[in-house]
Amino acid sequence: MAEMLVKSLKPDFYELDLPDERLKHYLTKPLVTVDTETRGLIPRRDRLCLIQICDEDGVVSLVRYKHQFQASDNLGANVKKLLEAQSVLKVFHFARFDVAVLKYYLNAVVSPIFCTKIGSKLVRTYTDRHSLKDLSRELIKVEMDKTDQSSDWAKDGLSDSQLEYAANDVRLLIPIYKQIRDLLERENRTELAQKVIQCLPAVCDVDLGGWTNIFEH
Amino acid sequence: MAEMLVKSLKPDFYELDLPDERLKHYLTKPLVTVDTETRGLIPRRDRLCLIQICDEDGVVSLVRYKHQFQASDNLGANVKKLLEAQSVLKVFHFARFDVAVLKYYLNAVVSPIFCTKIGSKLVRTYTDRHSLKDLSRELIKVEMDKTDQSSDWAKDGLSDSQLEYAANDVRLLIPIYKQIRDLLERENRTELAQKVIQCLPAVCDVDLGGWTNIFEH
Amino acid sequence: MAEMLVKSLKPDFYELDLPDERLKHYLTKPLVTVDTETRGLIPRRDRLCLIQICDEDGVVSLVRYKHQFQASDNLGANVKKLLEAQSVLKVFHFARFDVAVLKYYLNAVVSPIFCTKIGSKLVRTYTDRHSLKDLSRELIKVEMDKTDQSSDWAKDGLSDSQLEYAANDVRLLIPIYKQIRDLLERENRTELAQKVIQCLPAVCDVDLGGWTNIFEH
Amino acid sequence: MAEMLVKSLKPDFYELDLPDERLKHYLTKPLVTVDTETRGLIPRRDRLCLIQICDEDGVVSLVRYKHQFQASDNLGANVKKLLEAQSVLKVFHFARFDVAVLKYYLNAVVSPIFCTKIGSKLVRTYTDRHSLKDLSRELIKVEMDKTDQSSDWAKDGLSDSQLEYAANDVRLLIPIYKQIRDLLERENRTELAQKVIQCLPAVCDVDLGGWTNIFEH
Amino acid sequence: MAEMLVKSLKPDFYELDLPDERLKHYLTKPLVTVDTETRGLIPRRDRLCLIQICDEDGVVSLVRYKHQFQASDNLGANVKKLLEAQSVLKVFHFARFDVAVLKYYLNAVVSPIFCTKIGSKLVRTYTDRHSLKDLSRELIKVEMDKTDQSSDWAKDGLSDSQLEYAANDVRLLIPIYKQIRDLLERENRTELAQKVIQCLPAVCDVDLGGWTNIFEH
Amino acid sequence: MAEMLVKSLKPDFYELDLPDERLKHYLTKPLVTVDTETRGLIPRRDRLCLIQICDEDGVVSLVRYKHQFQASDNLGANVKKLLEAQSVLKVFHFARFDVAVLKYYLNAVVSPIFCTKIGSKLVRTYTDRHSLKDLSRELIKVEMDKTDQSSDWAKDGLSDSQLEYAANDVRLLIPIYKQIRDLLERENRTELAQKVIQCLPAVCDVDLGGWTNIFEH
Amino acid sequence: MAEMLVKSLKPDFYELDLPDERLKHYLTKPLVTVDTETRGLIPRRDRLCLIQICDEDGVVSLVRYKHQFQASDNLGANVKKLLEAQSVLKVFHFARFDVAVLKYYLNAVVSPIFCTKIGSKLVRTYTDRHSLKDLSRELIKVEMDKTDQSSDWAKDGLSDSQLEYAANDVRLLIPIYKQIRDLLERENRTELAQKVIQCLPAVCDVDLGGWTNIFEH
Amino acid sequence: MAEMLVKSLKPDFYELDLPDERLKHYLTKPLVTVDTETRGLIPRRDRLCLIQICDEDGVVSLVRYKHQFQASDNLGANVKKLLEAQSVLKVFHFARFDVAVLKYYLNAVVSPIFCTKIGSKLVRTYTDRHSLKDLSRELIKVEMDKTDQSSDWAKDGLSDSQLEYAANDVRLLIPIYKQIRDLLERENRTELAQKVIQCLPAVCDVDLGGWTNIFEH
Repeated sequence: MAEMLVKSLKPDFYELDLPDERLKHYLTKPLVTVDTETRGLIPRRDRLCLIQICDEDGVVSLVRYKHQFQASDNLGANVKKLLEAQSVLKVFHFARFDVAVLKYYLNAVVSPIFCTKIGSKLVRTYTDRHSLKDLSRELIKVEMDKTDQSSDWAKDGLSDSQLEYAANDVRLLIPIYKQIRDLLERENRTELAQKVIQCLPAVCDVDLGGWTNIFEH
Repeated sequence: MAEMLVKSLKPDFYELDLPDERLKHYLTKPLVTVDTETRGLIPRRDRLCLIQICDEDGVVSLVRYKHQFQASDNLGANVKKLLEAQSVLKVFHFARFDVAVLKYYLNAVVSPIFCTKIGSKLVRTYTDRHSLKDLSRELIKVEMDKTDQSSDWAKDGLSDSQLEYAANDVRLLIPIYKQIRDLLERENRTELAQKVIQCLPAVCDVDLGGWTNIFEH
Repeated sequence: MAEMLVKSLKPDFYELDLPDERLKHYLTKPLVTVDTETRGLIPRRDRLCLIQICDEDGVVSLVRYKHQFQASDNLGANVKKLLEAQSVLKVFHFARFDVAVLKYYLNAVVSPIFCTKIGSKLVRTYTDRHSLKDLSRELIKVEMDKTDQSSDWAKDGLSDSQLEYAANDVRLLIPIYKQIRDLLERENRTELAQKVIQCLPAVCDVDLGGWTNIFEH
Repeated sequence: MAEMLVKSLKPDFYELDLPDERLKHYLTKPLVTVDTETRGLIPRRDRLCLIQICDEDGVVSLVRYKHQFQASDNLGANVKKLLEAQSVLKVFHFARFDVAVLKYYLNAVVSPIFCTKIGSKLVRTYTDRHSLKDLSRELIKVEMDKTDQSSDWAKDGLSDSQLEYAANDVRLLIPIYKQIRDLLERENRTELAQKVIQCLPAVCDVDLGGWTNIFEH
Repeated sequence: MAEMLVKSLKPDFYELDLPDERLKHYLTKPLVTVDTETRGLIPRRDRLCLIQICDEDGVVSLVRYKHQFQASDNLGANVKKLLEAQSVLKVFHFARFDVAVLKYYLNAVVSPIFCTKIGSKLVRTYTDRHSLKDLSRELIKVEMDKTDQSSDWAKDGLSDSQLEYAANDVRLLIPIYKQIRDLLERENRTELAQKVIQCLPAVCDVDLGGWTNIFEH
Repeated sequence: MAEMLVKSLKPDFYELDLPDERLKHYLTKPLVTVDTETRGLIPRRDRLCLIQICDEDGVVSLVRYKHQFQASDNLGANVKKLLEAQSVLKVFHFARFDVAVLKYYLNAVVSPIFCTKIGSKLVRTYTDRHSLKDLSRELIKVEMDKTDQSSDWAKDGLSDSQLEYAANDVRLLIPIYKQIRDLLERENRTELAQKVIQCLPAVCDVDLGGWTNIFEH
Repeated sequence: MAEMLVKSLKPDFYELDLPDERLKHYLTKPLVTVDTETRGLIPRRDRLCLIQICDEDGVVSLVRYKHQFQASDNLGANVKKLLEAQSVLKVFHFARFDVAVLKYYLNAVVSPIFCTKIGSKLVRTYTDRHSLKDLSRELIKVEMDKTDQSSDWAKDGLSDSQLEYAANDVRLLIPIYKQIRDLLERENRTELAQKVIQCLPAVCDVDLGGWTNIFEH
Repeated sequence: MAEMLVKSLKPDFYELDLPDERLKHYLTKPLVTVDTETRGLIPRRDRLCLIQICDEDGVVSLVRYKHQFQASDNLGANVKKLLEAQSVLKVFHFARFDVAVLKYYLNAVVSPIFCTKIGSKLVRTYTDRHSLKDLSRELIKVEMDKTDQSSDWAKDGLSDSQLEYAANDVRLLIPIYKQIRDLLERENRTELAQKVIQCLPAVCDVDLGGWTNIFEH
């Protein structure tokens, strides 16, 4: 099955926004997985380069922002509609970063959201390994190749291995999310996960503002 | 003014719960300050000893739990009603601790809440000193005596200085809260503060559960 | 020999308790090795999933607790009898964890006990590597596979490799224990080991209570 | 009261051992407090200089070892009898150090013992300050002068302030012990304290042997 | 002399910019000292509140920015002219912070500059205390009161003690600068100091950009 | 291509200085890459052993200093001319070290310079790996062999693998430099890089002088 | 050559002391290498198990102490004579440990000595890797197998690989010493090395006594 | 007595060297105390400013080096003769620093020496406070004023308090040395102290060379 997941559909590649049709397609779905690639971890310095989206049928869209040095309102209007559509759950791994980036560059208030990293921490209490690679290995028996994780996502022609990597991150997140969701259910921690994940937009605002340890003594 | 605040009304002292009349009194108010004293920082080991409540008129109630080794449902029903009353804002300093304790011992879902520690962090960005003592010194020019902060709140007869300390914590929190509230307003951070403070119940659940660094990478 | 140990008898698998006959069998023995698998390191959050027992003949019993969210008195009465039987030495590796878990979930006061980790520290003074894997490699020349150590021991159908791992932990502990016991004897530290191991129930109580560094200055 | 305690009886000063009569006197008592002064924290390097003993009537004995460079069996036979007398509880503050020193120099197996530091940690959970000075200040309202704590206890003529300091350490420990004992009783932790304190001889052996973190993972 | 310095001329207080006349006055001078007060250490979050300027005659100007939430080009044009005037040396203590703030809010490229902190590090090699308070104490025998250093510089009416503090920071910097300058001369390190101080604009850009440890291995 | 780079021209080997002709050759070039090998990281203790130079045509010169225990003025006059020639850009990786060494031993004021480490930090913001080996792997797909990096560069006969290593460091730096230069251009950070790199001579002086953290608070 | 070194002569194995003849043999030599194996790093707890000696001809002697729980004067008199013979240089790697052990168990004042670890630090300034394994790899191109370094040297029958390991440590030290000696000579640091190595007996005394950081501020 | 010591004789002040007569005077003495003042802790950067010398009669000489930017051989020939005179013991507190400085600037091989810091560490094992101020307080009951310790010792006119401080450091060291010497005698550690102090010249060489942790593993 993993083999199938990784190789299945060829990702579609768009500049700056989703086409209307593709947006319409995703809006009929209960959930999509979302990931972003940037030039680094400091949004105001390291710009957004790519948004990856996948639905449960494996339809992957890669939206490219090559020269997006500044945040802008009339940018990715369709992506933003999807991110803010109340009927579609947006599933991230470590949403804290992506949701902040999407707010910074697209001014998007992403909602509703799920985060497999927080889900994993709440239910895989027997380990402290909660990277996407760790989840992939244990939950769906796929060994992910993270070589391109820290690469130049702003370069002119993205390499095949970069595109493959980008697509896989959202493709594999679909079955991983389902496993985490089921484990939370089994352990009666679904409600707790929702409560914690609902804090993420506040945490993102605080991160973008520059505060650290806001909850600490 | 500070002098007046500290000495004003004598606190009323109750065993295990607020009298009905006192509850009725508080329920007509827009806000009360709340503090708790325990035997330490680990709720399941260090029991709740005292709940302090104060309104804007300086009416202070101290509710005592001397032998409360276990959480219990039929305990402090009036206190719980007040803590859960939607019309009365409950103001804490470092709500993260008190809200968790009140959930653990009274099974109370305290709401709505405000936390002057989080407020201070968001608006007094020029300092990293956000203890109640620091806020008291700077914002209302009162030097608090914290000698009894770490004392034996379960002992038979609480000393006068303990009672004074306990009452002052909630009395002084009234004008401190107002200052923090006004500063947040002036700096356009009221909404941000609300967003962050709304995360506290989730943070408390996670604390009681035993997770740490739930939002971290 | 190691080969033989690892492959020998198929472990027997029971739900919630040992059958009477199996208990009777073990009660005739001078010692058994015992291990537990849980959902993590915090007993009140991460429940007990499995108890493994082995005797010197290689008779392994795996007792499963799939839905054991709470401690309970009428649970595993036969296991408890074995754990408390004065005639049978219970040998653990890092007893500090297992003895606490067994007290928390079965209310068992495990006794008498031996801990190969403490034994190893007292006698293998030439190294700071005292994991079961280290002992197995050096003392009985078996390379243990610890892949499943941190896995989901609460899932519906435990995998073959999980069962194999669980059984091996107690099987291999038999010859390891004997080596450690002999080394302590050779180095005249048997009495010291007993003295130190007798402290473990107190250490477990202190751990469950939430204290840390109780012996430190 | 504190005033009285500090000034009361003049301590008696002996070379190398207690006189028979004084031993007989102490053997009729249910408890004595004991403290030692050494040249530092490493028994084999920093020799024993003084043993202080006090009973509930404030009878203080100071036993001096001025040239005791080596441990010796026929040294302080009466002190040893008292330390090993099962009918007399020996109360220390941080017994872990004193019991090790007394074993090293007098070969005494001190028993039974109580340790106010461990008692305090178990019951004064609201603080992390458990020095004798802290206990004295909070529990009996006496501010101890610790100037001479780190002084040259091997010098020819001990100063008056050294003698005063040495005597006070055991005198004040009497009422401090009683408070800690009562608090443990009130909090139902008497049995836990006994269980933990019974580990101290093993901890001392491990300390003298040179092991560290024997209970850790 | 110190007394004279501290009390001398009353500072003049301006909103948003220096008057033309005052600018003309300062432009005839070889040097001015400059300091800024902000709401904290993160320029994009903690806005500029005050710029203090002093010349060698003790003419102090305080320029207030009460509502300056955003950087702006048409703000403080006269201040900017002074900061960029090549004929007037701008002396700071820890210029790294002030120069970055002035670039962020006024878009000013401050030049030429001197930094007494770097000067002090290069020449007061016998100490690691290089705060303005330390320099003031040693070099001009004035004990500075830093109470208001971390205070709310955005509040409506600045207190007398805040104004006094703000003026003193630039007043006292005049004689301190002269001492540091002379010491550098005496120790043949004037050129080295200039070379190092000329790096500060680059360091400020890197700071504002979000890089850390840019020179490190 | 990488293959070609690594194997291309045989390096020329000189004692103490470049021949006049070779200097003339390099002086016609817009840029050379430069590296040094020493006996360690402390210039006054660990002497200079080798200077490597390469131009864009792959002409590599290795200048050897075998017995250079002291700095000296009449040493490497041609090398010094090249290092100080304003028409030839000297490209280093971590120039901070090499420029200091060249100042210490040759009294050369190297200028103009470029540093690929600083360039990489400014533009490869997606990673914290900025060693020459990391840049080589990502930017020109060559896996460098660093075995000889820490070897005895003062020994009589340098081994073939040492010579190969020494030559490769400057050969590969040519294409790496060009990539970094282009990335800086693409990201509009060329000017920032120049500004930061111009600080390096000051940083070197401060390093040689013995100061640390000169820019820190 | 390395191959030859490792395999050459079979080591001779003695209980408790060297035979007279073997002592006589070694006393004619200008130098021997010496190593010790113990049960750990704390001499008073972890007893001496083996002394290895080798001369430049590869004559290796292993002297075994199987039951040597206490230091003793009439133990290894011939070994002691060799260790104290002024005409024979004793070469160790990290002499600080071995010299202390030999003083503790044999009461030997080893002299004269050389330490290749200190020699390496003084002359291989280009690296911070100074283990015997590192020296062996770089200086004589032999990859040492350290598997048995931390093994049970007190066990009844030492394994072949233990004996091989023990012999190799002293065999390989011969050519390593010669290289280090030559490098010190080449770098004019022979005298410095002697001066530093002469401090080792004092450092050993201080170590055995229990002091740490005796030279530090 | 302390009073007397501090106020006794006025120190004599010399430029660059001791007069012949004063040298002759000191050469008749069995011991002098010596201290140095510099511009900081890095000899090659922070030059020597003052050498203080005192004998047992309280004859204090202060030798000033105001412009001594470089080490020089024909500088302080008389001081050097005294420092190298085998008949006069030179007593320092933390000789490691002073002996290195005197070697660096005067090329003096100071001998014989004593260090009260090492002496104190060896014999005042009951404390970790071994500064001169600590020794002065405990051993001779004088509270030293260290205000001028970190001051500008190169300035033109040294202040009275600087001169007083400089003289006291050597004056008070006389009785402190005697106490430490007697304590070492009493504790049978005179020989150990000598052995350790004899290592200091090697440690100084290693320090000046730039090595750290030369004795460590």
